[in-house]
Amino acid sequence: MEKRSYAEEHRYWIIPTTVPPSENEALLSGSGVWMRVAGKKYFDACAQVSCANLGHNHPRFTELMELFWKNARTGDVITSVMGTDFLYENHSVLELSPVALAKRLAPHCFGAENTIFGFHVTGTQAVNVAIRFFRTVTKKPFVISFEKAFHGRDGEARDVSDSNPVHWDEVPRSGNVFFLPYPETKDDFERTLQCLNDIPLKKCAAVIYEPIQGEGGGMRVGNWLAEIEYILQGEGIFSISDEIQAGLGRCGSWWGYQQIRCNPDAIVIGKSLGSGHPISAVAFKRSRCDVSAFPAGKVSGTFTMSPVGIAAANFTMHIYEKEKIVQRAEKNADIFSVLLSTIITKANSGGAPYPWRADGAGLYRSIKPVNANWHPDWKKRDSLVQALRDVGVWTLGASRAYPAVRITPPLIASEEELKFLAEKIGEAIAITKT
Amino acid sequence: MEKRSYAEEHRYWIIPTTVPPSENEALLSGSGVWMRVAGKKYFDACAQVSCANLGHNHPRFTELMELFWKNARTGDVITSVMGTDFLYENHSVLELSPVALAKRLAPHCFGAENTIFGFHVTGTQAVNVAIRFFRTVTKKPFVISFEKAFHGRDGEARDVSDSNPVHWDEVPRSGNVFFLPYPETKDDFERTLQCLNDIPLKKCAAVIYEPIQGEGGGMRVGNWLAEIEYILQGEGIFSISDEIQAGLGRCGSWWGYQQIRCNPDAIVIGKSLGSGHPISAVAFKRSRCDVSAFPAGKVSGTFTMSPVGIAAANFTMHIYEKEKIVQRAEKNADIFSVLLSTIITKANSGGAPYPWRADGAGLYRSIKPVNANWHPDWKKRDSLVQALRDVGVWTLGASRAYPAVRITPPLIASEEELKFLAEKIGEAIAITKT
Repeated sequence: MEKRSYAEEHRYWIIPTTVPPSENEALLSGSGVWMRVAGKKYFDACAQVSCANLGHNHPRFTELMELFWKNARTGDVITSVMGTDFLYENHSVLELSPVALAKRLAPHCFGAENTIFGFHVTGTQAVNVAIRFFRTVTKKPFVISFEKAFHGRDGEARDVSDSNPVHWDEVPRSGNVFFLPYPETKDDFERTLQCLNDIPLKKCAAVIYEPIQGEGGGMRVGNWLAEIEYILQGEGIFSISDEIQAGLGRCGSWWGYQQIRCNPDAIVIGKSLGSGHPISAVAFKRSRCDVSAFPAGKVSGTFTMSPVGIAAANFTMHIYEKEKIVQRAEKNADIFSVLLSTIITKANSGGAPYPWRADGAGLYRSIKPVNANWHPDWKKRDSLVQALRDVGVWTLGASRAYPAVRITPPLIASEEELKFLAEKIGEAIAITKT
Repeated sequence: MEKRSYAEEHRYWIIPTTVPPSENEALLSGSGVWMRVAGKKYFDACAQVSCANLGHNHPRFTELMELFWKNARTGDVITSVMGTDFLYENHSVLELSPVALAKRLAPHCFGAENTIFGFHVTGTQAVNVAIRFFRTVTKKPFVISFEKAFHGRDGEARDVSDSNPVHWDEVPRSGNVFFLPYPETKDDFERTLQCLNDIPLKKCAAVIYEPIQGEGGGMRVGNWLAEIEYILQGEGIFSISDEIQAGLGRCGSWWGYQQIRCNPDAIVIGKSLGSGHPISAVAFKRSRCDVSAFPAGKVSGTFTMSPVGIAAANFTMHIYEKEKIVQRAEKNADIFSVLLSTIITKANSGGAPYPWRADGAGLYRSIKPVNANWHPDWKKRDSLVQALRDVGVWTLGASRAYPAVRITPPLIASEEELKFLAEKIGEAIAITKT
């Protein structure tokens, strides 16, 4: 048998997941906003789809994880457990307690006296919990979502998703979901209002939205979501903001919904919560959610509230507090907005018939080649991704609905690093084939 | 506000999951087969529902995890990433490579040349992947499962589950699942055969089974599953063995299906694969599975193949090899079977009208109070759980279908430790109120 390359080995041994692995994507190391892929250093301008808000290998986070396992070696911390079957008070050094995590997060959610949590493993699972909670307490079967939404690939999260990757006939859906136009513009909003007439609102338990549509929407901002949410809440429908990517400072505020003045009853948190360690959360607004109507046994799992996951999230939140990450993100968002719009204005200044457009908010941005009719240009998009890599910037050409390039740098980037990134984006646009 | 106890705090801050937390279950430390709950030392006879096959805080595992994070501190290993978007060759010391993990597991699955893997996060997700795979490649909509099965709480895994915790009306099911009687006895088998007449077999993609029913079945052994599997495979239906709890040596062999001579096309692996770290796997039999018919984009997730998860599994398998864990489990299974049947024989020797019964295989056992009609006795079950705790043995009174107490010690238990455990079980039975 001929010697296979590592990528060939990967394709031989492992079934396809998101994308077929390429020889050029062997990743080994990283630090701060930088990472090294196949021997070349890149600015990580995708922040691993918001998993690396603190950058790569944050010194304090990795130190605390090392300490966690050191304590496990001496039998002082327990690790291989069913998380839901025990209570964990804080260790003298390490924070294993989901209660401690709840207390840390609550002031940033609905307030210390007004938040109750579910802690889970994946973002998908947290979406499922949020939807299941409201279906259970309201005893209503239907849920409302939006066109091009992406909330996950399993269960209820898949049911409420409308972006391409989860669209295929072989797997039956449970149904019971209504999809509305995503209200980015006033025109969308008018169409959304029309659609509400066709939905049995009194039978709907909840509405779930992304404040800014990531995967499917290419960072479209739900400017008119607050109005829709207000109408639906008036009908007794609970509202869930999916903050898996947009939350935890990504948009320059704790949560994406704050950018569009929404008022959710629950928020779903994932990605960077454990700095890459699998842990997710749902925060419910206590004053609006009848927890007593939600009995034990309905949501759980082997790794739910496992001590190592809870510890990873406590460590992450510790760093968020100590380094004022969200305040930094707010400042960085202002800086980066100006830098990015300068680049786009300059790129479009020649009166190009097919201009660039920047979407999103804060450090949750995308660049798209668009024309007046919003016709996608996938080739140009892919060409920009390649140009960015050539100049040392790693991004993801996500979104199958729009030809967008996501620009989502780690929140801990310095002003100099953001300037460097903007400069490189400008260079890449200039050399992008059209 | 009055000072709340930790359990009260937990109930205040966190929505209910499996069981309401009790003051007596504050867990802090553990080592080998032992753990300390609320200050008292217990023999962990549930091995955390097979998450702690290597016992608590295995010295080599914790050492390797500590080393992992030490390397992350120096930027030498990358951690906060979307696992599916990159390739990871092995680090000089640490094994981050899913290919390395595949090569390690393959000889124990369908052979080095005949296995291909999917690596995922939770067991539920791996079940979903297995079912989705066969629905996709066969383009058939239906799946067959068994009464009282438990495979998970989300998506397809929930659809094929029939045990109480996932039975509730508020969440619609996708349907497209047929449930057969679980063929423990020849009578069951005859009924199962009858039921096959009512199923459109040509439209069924797969059958999924637990070789020994855990959660829902209280360790009933599927003695006649091999016959059913053979018939279904003859109809072009692919077979999936859910080895999340029964596999990785738990039954005294690598996989539970080997105890009942089944011949699956795919096996689902979870729990102890990462020694408590969230990672799961599906192993497909290459010669039977048309991987080329399974395109990219259908199964994925943020934490799928994250380096820290892959590393945890590689470390676990390293210890399995080095310490010959499955051979030890086989030997321990023999020892424990004799010890347990001696206890049960003794307990029933007085001619009790309501005897005890031991079920299961290897180190995957249960004790049940039964009568001739299999009438459950929940009170006696709960009384046994309490008696076991009184004598220093931690077990789970799982299974809502049968009043069983699960006895599933860590596989690394020494002969002395198993003898100690058996003795304590005997003591507990003697003091159990009837």
